Amino acid sequence: MSASSRILNLAVIPGDGIGQEVVAQGLKVLGAVLPPDVKLETTEYDFGAKRYHATGETLTDADVEALKRHDAILLGAIGDPSVPSGVLERGFLLKLRFLFDHHVNLRPSKLLPGVATPLKGQPEIDFIVVREGTEGPYTGNGGSIRTGTPHEVATEVSVNTAFGVERVVRDAFARAQARPRKKLTLVHKNNVLAYAGHLWTNVFNKVAKEFPEVTTDYIHVDAATIYLVTDPGRFDVIVTDNLFGDIITDLAAAVSGGIGVAASGNINPSREFPSMFEPVHGSAPDIAGQGKADPSATVLSVALLLRHLGYEPEAARIEAAVSADLAERGESVRGTEQIGDALAVRVAG
Amino acid sequence: MSASSRILNLAVIPGDGIGQEVVAQGLKVLGAVLPPDVKLETTEYDFGAKRYHATGETLTDADVEALKRHDAILLGAIGDPSVPSGVLERGFLLKLRFLFDHHVNLRPSKLLPGVATPLKGQPEIDFIVVREGTEGPYTGNGGSIRTGTPHEVATEVSVNTAFGVERVVRDAFARAQARPRKKLTLVHKNNVLAYAGHLWTNVFNKVAKEFPEVTTDYIHVDAATIYLVTDPGRFDVIVTDNLFGDIITDLAAAVSGGIGVAASGNINPSREFPSMFEPVHGSAPDIAGQGKADPSATVLSVALLLRHLGYEPEAARIEAAVSADLAERGESVRGTEQIGDALAVRVAG
Ligand SMILES: CC(C)[C@H](C(=O)O)[C@@H](O)C(=O)O
Ligand SMILES: CC(C)[C@H](C(=O)O)[C@@H](O)C(=O)O
Repeated sequence: MSASSRILNLAVIPGDGIGQEVVAQGLKVLGAVLPPDVKLETTEYDFGAKRYHATGETLTDADVEALKRHDAILLGAIGDPSVPSGVLERGFLLKLRFLFDHHVNLRPSKLLPGVATPLKGQPEIDFIVVREGTEGPYTGNGGSIRTGTPHEVATEVSVNTAFGVERVVRDAFARAQARPRKKLTLVHKNNVLAYAGHLWTNVFNKVAKEFPEVTTDYIHVDAATIYLVTDPGRFDVIVTDNLFGDIITDLAAAVSGGIGVAASGNINPSREFPSMFEPVHGSAPDIAGQGKADPSATVLSVALLLRHLGYEPEAARIEAAVSADLAERGESVRGTEQIGDALAVRVAG
Repeated sequence: MSASSRILNLAVIPGDGIGQEVVAQGLKVLGAVLPPDVKLETTEYDFGAKRYHATGETLTDADVEALKRHDAILLGAIGDPSVPSGVLERGFLLKLRFLFDHHVNLRPSKLLPGVATPLKGQPEIDFIVVREGTEGPYTGNGGSIRTGTPHEVATEVSVNTAFGVERVVRDAFARAQARPRKKLTLVHKNNVLAYAGHLWTNVFNKVAKEFPEVTTDYIHVDAATIYLVTDPGRFDVIVTDNLFGDIITDLAAAVSGGIGVAASGNINPSREFPSMFEPVHGSAPDIAGQGKADPSATVLSVALLLRHLGYEPEAARIEAAVSADLAERGESVRGTEQIGDALAVRVAG
């Protein structure tokens, strides 16, 4: 390797269902967009339903050590109806988010020209959600007693720390500061979840003082779902708790073109551990293996990955390519590979 | 009072903002729809921001005793920006739900002809959400340590009991059984909130055996928000947890005509304590006192109140009147009183 060449060392996890198909296109576009001096090295991992059925494993200590050696992780989709609900989610997806401290769960929503939305009047939608990724009701804290009896009591504990809230709130302020509108909305339910709500609101107001140029407001999560369908243009950057973020980003994806184009990053901004990038959609077993899945969400996740690693021009080129492709797509029905090929041509050209 | 006459003894809580205006119309329509042998007795209570500022009280023990003596409660709206977030919500609204064991929080969503929806193509929407009202993350369990310091930890505990889940699930099955489509969807997040999710799923599957005619399915709450905007017609009856119910019913209201027409009941089916009926909208201080608020949601809440107390024909007449009024409303802009008058004429006619 010459002194001037760089290496991009990726862990690739195709996963289940359509995961294989869309990840292949993501890698194709990545290969096409990288400058010649960057050497792409990929290692494929077999996590997901197949491995679970064969070995009972979801993610071993050795797996974690192996993943740590990569610059970033590209994931297709994990999940299959043959595996009991929660096993792969908690045993793999959430486990990685927690182990690698992916506290910034980044989910952009942009309604691109030519893309269909279920909303009337093709509203302007262009916001990002910064979802906390390592706290809240996702910590697995809780339990049950008298399980399975008429006297069962089951609890779930939402755990929120000033440390955890402050770092994600500060990240969101910095992102808002860097955008033209410079607006940040805190979404929570502080009128009911008073302890967590108080912490979030306090920290938010404190950090706001460091970003005097950023306009701020607060909306309850229930009201936020109303705005997302009646006035999505009001949002620029949203920062919110893990569970609220889970809920509103699915809705945000639905109104801004559907989960076919929704990308996400599970980011550790310190880069102490590799960040993971994945489409918001799941494994879609009903259309798996048919070459029908839209790889755009995965390709856009590759853009987020590149931006995280400092390849900003390449990230922007991918986003422009997807945008142009969608605008010209019209009624044409193309397969997974065709779309991937078209995007690869665009980013290279 | 003659032997054949009945009394309907209502507690009326106009509350804050537009509460006064819309409740007045609700009572007008109620007066017009009741048969002559029913004597309507109402007692007005002054809960809300004004009383809180004057006395510091939100709901005293004496208030609770007084409210208990009524057949039902009609509420306008509680809440004002002058009161810190959460004080009236927890000190009045939630306190009553818990004290009077309003475990069935009933929220119908029907897109009536002539009513605008933010969704394309005027989809058919006709479902009800049965939201649990006395458990989950709403119990006020939780706390914080090192509050206000960089080492603060704040928790919220979602409490779920087999007793509490089973009664609301059974209520929802009975409602599904009584509807033409006979379909019940459980909405939860059982892949992440495993303890509570396991309890809800288990109880749901157990009670399902008692209702073999009811078709059932399960959807994660995040996916439910997608369906609510892409395929709301798939829902018939939804049963869900307190917090998920809070979130999806605001979205449901938004897609089915807005909160101007969304009614709700906080129901104690045993009638041990009075149930409370209220529009889903809040006090809307920005338009208060201007005679602009749409009273339809309150009038529809009166219909739910009547149905709960056994006045089914009267409830149906109100619903038909609101439906006809909305269908003929067109672009005309009418004030709160005009709409109330029109509805009163229709239900009497
Ligand atoms: C699969 C599930 C554990 C996950 C979540 O709840 O975070 C998913 O819904 C998401 O949004 O990435
Ligand atoms: C005002 C608030 C406490 C309440 C809730 O969260 O239940 C409201 O949003 C509702 O849905 O009735």
